[in-house]
Amino acid sequence: MQLVKRILPDGNGINKAELDELTEKLKSITPSPGAEGKPKKAKKSKLVLKNAKGTIDQGPAEMAVREELFDKIKAVFKTHGAETIDTPVFELTDILTNKYGEDSKLIYNVAKPEGSDESLSLRYDLTVPFARFVAQNKIQNIKRYHIAKVYRRDQPYMTKGRYREFYQCDFDIAGSNYAPMFPDAECVKIATEIIDSLDIGKYTIKLNDRRILDGIFAACGCPDELFRAACAEVDKLDKLPWTAPDNEVSVRCGMIKKGLTEECADKIGQFVQRSGGQDLVKELLADPVLGANKSATEGLKEMSVLLEYLEAWKIMDKVSFDLSLARGLDYYTGVIYEIVMTPSEEDIKTAEVGTTVGVGSVAAGGRYDGLVGSLVGGKGKSNVPCVGISFGVERLYTLLKRKKDASSIRTTATQVFVMSGQKNMLKERAAILNDLWEAGIPAETSYKPNPKLLNDLQSCESRNIPWGIVFGEREIEEGIVLLRSITSREEEKVARSDLVKILKEKLAV
Amino acid sequence: MQLVKRILPDGNGINKAELDELTEKLKSITPSPGAEGKPKKAKKSKLVLKNAKGTIDQGPAEMAVREELFDKIKAVFKTHGAETIDTPVFELTDILTNKYGEDSKLIYNVAKPEGSDESLSLRYDLTVPFARFVAQNKIQNIKRYHIAKVYRRDQPYMTKGRYREFYQCDFDIAGSNYAPMFPDAECVKIATEIIDSLDIGKYTIKLNDRRILDGIFAACGCPDELFRAACAEVDKLDKLPWTAPDNEVSVRCGMIKKGLTEECADKIGQFVQRSGGQDLVKELLADPVLGANKSATEGLKEMSVLLEYLEAWKIMDKVSFDLSLARGLDYYTGVIYEIVMTPSEEDIKTAEVGTTVGVGSVAAGGRYDGLVGSLVGGKGKSNVPCVGISFGVERLYTLLKRKKDASSIRTTATQVFVMSGQKNMLKERAAILNDLWEAGIPAETSYKPNPKLLNDLQSCESRNIPWGIVFGEREIEEGIVLLRSITSREEEKVARSDLVKILKEKLAV
Repeated sequence: MQLVKRILPDGNGINKAELDELTEKLKSITPSPGAEGKPKKAKKSKLVLKNAKGTIDQGPAEMAVREELFDKIKAVFKTHGAETIDTPVFELTDILTNKYGEDSKLIYNVAKPEGSDESLSLRYDLTVPFARFVAQNKIQNIKRYHIAKVYRRDQPYMTKGRYREFYQCDFDIAGSNYAPMFPDAECVKIATEIIDSLDIGKYTIKLNDRRILDGIFAACGCPDELFRAACAEVDKLDKLPWTAPDNEVSVRCGMIKKGLTEECADKIGQFVQRSGGQDLVKELLADPVLGANKSATEGLKEMSVLLEYLEAWKIMDKVSFDLSLARGLDYYTGVIYEIVMTPSEEDIKTAEVGTTVGVGSVAAGGRYDGLVGSLVGGKGKSNVPCVGISFGVERLYTLLKRKKDASSIRTTATQVFVMSGQKNMLKERAAILNDLWEAGIPAETSYKPNPKLLNDLQSCESRNIPWGIVFGEREIEEGIVLLRSITSREEEKVARSDLVKILKEKLAV
Repeated sequence: MQLVKRILPDGNGINKAELDELTEKLKSITPSPGAEGKPKKAKKSKLVLKNAKGTIDQGPAEMAVREELFDKIKAVFKTHGAETIDTPVFELTDILTNKYGEDSKLIYNVAKPEGSDESLSLRYDLTVPFARFVAQNKIQNIKRYHIAKVYRRDQPYMTKGRYREFYQCDFDIAGSNYAPMFPDAECVKIATEIIDSLDIGKYTIKLNDRRILDGIFAACGCPDELFRAACAEVDKLDKLPWTAPDNEVSVRCGMIKKGLTEECADKIGQFVQRSGGQDLVKELLADPVLGANKSATEGLKEMSVLLEYLEAWKIMDKVSFDLSLARGLDYYTGVIYEIVMTPSEEDIKTAEVGTTVGVGSVAAGGRYDGLVGSLVGGKGKSNVPCVGISFGVERLYTLLKRKKDASSIRTTATQVFVMSGQKNMLKERAAILNDLWEAGIPAETSYKPNPKLLNDLQSCESRNIPWGIVFGEREIEEGIVLLRSITSREEEKVARSDLVKILKEKLAV
């Protein structure tokens, strides 16, 4: 095995001068995707070829980034000892009823053919199917992740990544008599590990507790029946100001419209605009109004425990106990959290008025202790407390894709491309290919009977395939091939019988 | 770091005698899944908790086997340089119309809410969405795989693995002016590589060509309009005999019922019961009746080319050119193939009368040169010839699962379990855990505030977790932990500061 400088000057082998010339040509050609993958114009179609509204195809480049994303997320889940499960894409409609509040109207139903006695709906999230799985199989403890598509007939906003079919990626811990806030803290920890591993920028984890919010509402004199409405208004604080002049839209204004008195709204406002850490917890526990409320005190004491874990795990710099966090879903009963990306300078420059700057929230979740119990319809023992976090795959994907240079994304694992400059070499190419396949070396050759060597070489360069095998009749006679480094454009002479061994060394497979 | 024989005889550390006693107890206990995962009886439910008819949940053990299956399949696809894509679970109904013959009635439709102008259907296979993707994006060449769920409102047969929601796993090569039968041969080769890598038994790859079948029908005097009916009857030859006494159901009888003359049926019968290799191809090419038929001759000549590749790749022992293979789908235009598992002795013993012995076909496919063109409604240039193979994941899963000892299936990646025999050690457990997580070592601890050491040790054994970390106050004071091999039940003393380094060495992470 030696570096070939000028072998095979003529004859019917691969002519080195010719190869050099091709190499020169290659240098003068701007890299392009080559013939493969180049779209041609199609004739007019009778059928309308398009995706269902709000859905998209994922091409090879998108899938390559998406798989990297899923692999990194899964690696963290596995480090935490999680199992995975899968549930069907449709559920009996009854299972999904009364779980999503107003958003229930966004659920897709399956058409019920004549004679069928089942009403089916496409899953709206992975949490309710998970609770159904736990309840139905009478599971007492499980720590599982689930990455799968969910369906919402929402108004799509394709450029912002809001689709009708999209991936969710959930991690949940279910079980009774667990140490308070320990699983909850683990969910927050997992969020930091995942986002850090993706290296997509700075973020803040907002923490709050439904019990604290309820306590605030009660302590401020909000009637019980308006708790949920007040909560929904608080949830808007990431988009709207607390108060605004001249009757412009504001959260305070919204609360009053929902029926709260001005006095009550103002009291609530003094709380829900606060954020901090352990100091704020202590201050609120000592607050004469809030400190007397049982629900708030419970929530605050557990928040303090949660923060202790996060302090011990050294992630307090990423965390904010934020009383404005409310979260929309009905089923939360305790701690809630949301991970918000800090907008980049680019995000701030290009932000449109009235929309979130940057991608906003990339993960969120909380504790839902009553959901499994509500499904089995029982109390006490048949209930299974749960806490979990759901990652917004589409937004994480957007951030990960943005980091990448499009031309560097590899959509195949191909390490070797087999080529010949001569005609009628397909059977020889197929034979070499087979040796590589049998050895588990990802390899391809052109499907054309007589491909042009220049095209093949170009294709290797544009596709970032590291190695080429080049041969002609002469090489066959001599029992060798030329092994070409696509990057350096240098070839070396390799005995055909050593080829697999040498490639395995080079590729470390 | 040394093997601990009898350290810490007393005090408030971990008592070695106690550990030894626990180890003895462990030995006397039959391995069980432990408290975790043990089902309890649930109270009566108001809601009916069940899956939609014909669908199932995949629990952690099923998913572990399934992921192994997918990983092995994907590894082969990647070795062949394939990309992957994804398409939405529903398509515009028009796209699926007229693709599946009689089976179209099995398609699930999505309910059309008021105001919607789209009719949607759940995908029935991955081939038509692939053809839509190719046509819509005006792709000229692609080699892609796609593993995803498809939906058929068929009569479910759960114990035989026939579900209404099931995975398909497709590999297809699309492109024009490719060397005849080279991509087709690669599909067959991929089937052998995948099934061999799963190590699930012997199999036969049946090969035929639609053009040969059409040629036989024409040469035997079957009227053009009965070709498809005759083809459907031939397709039953794997379940029915060619002829049977006393008007019992047979393929010959079926053909006559469909309108073929007895003479024509008998002529066809002489062909479609044949199988062989290159010899049979030669014999048929020389056949005075068939050899004169253009369609048959084309098919036979290309079959010979296909067999040459398979000979060169040394897989002819697994292949049979079988004239009884017809395949149901409408869109095939050339070579067709089906991979049939050889029934095991167990299969033969337990076979029910009238059903396929063993799992039968585990993969099938063929060439469909007109499908993309039919979608774009044009001819010539806008068409993209395709060939592909689809693997029956549920059947492969059944065979792979059957090979496994249920207790050996690991559903988590957990390598280390952190334990203490003493109370109030959660924060210390959490701190050790965090060091392991940060180092990427899959680790867990009990979520209970004060778990029993015996339960934790038992859980490690039943879950095949290789390493335990055990400590008490004494160990904390001394700055050490006990690293326990769960299999050998031996402990060694390890400095807390060396723990991550030592575990990384042991686990090679």
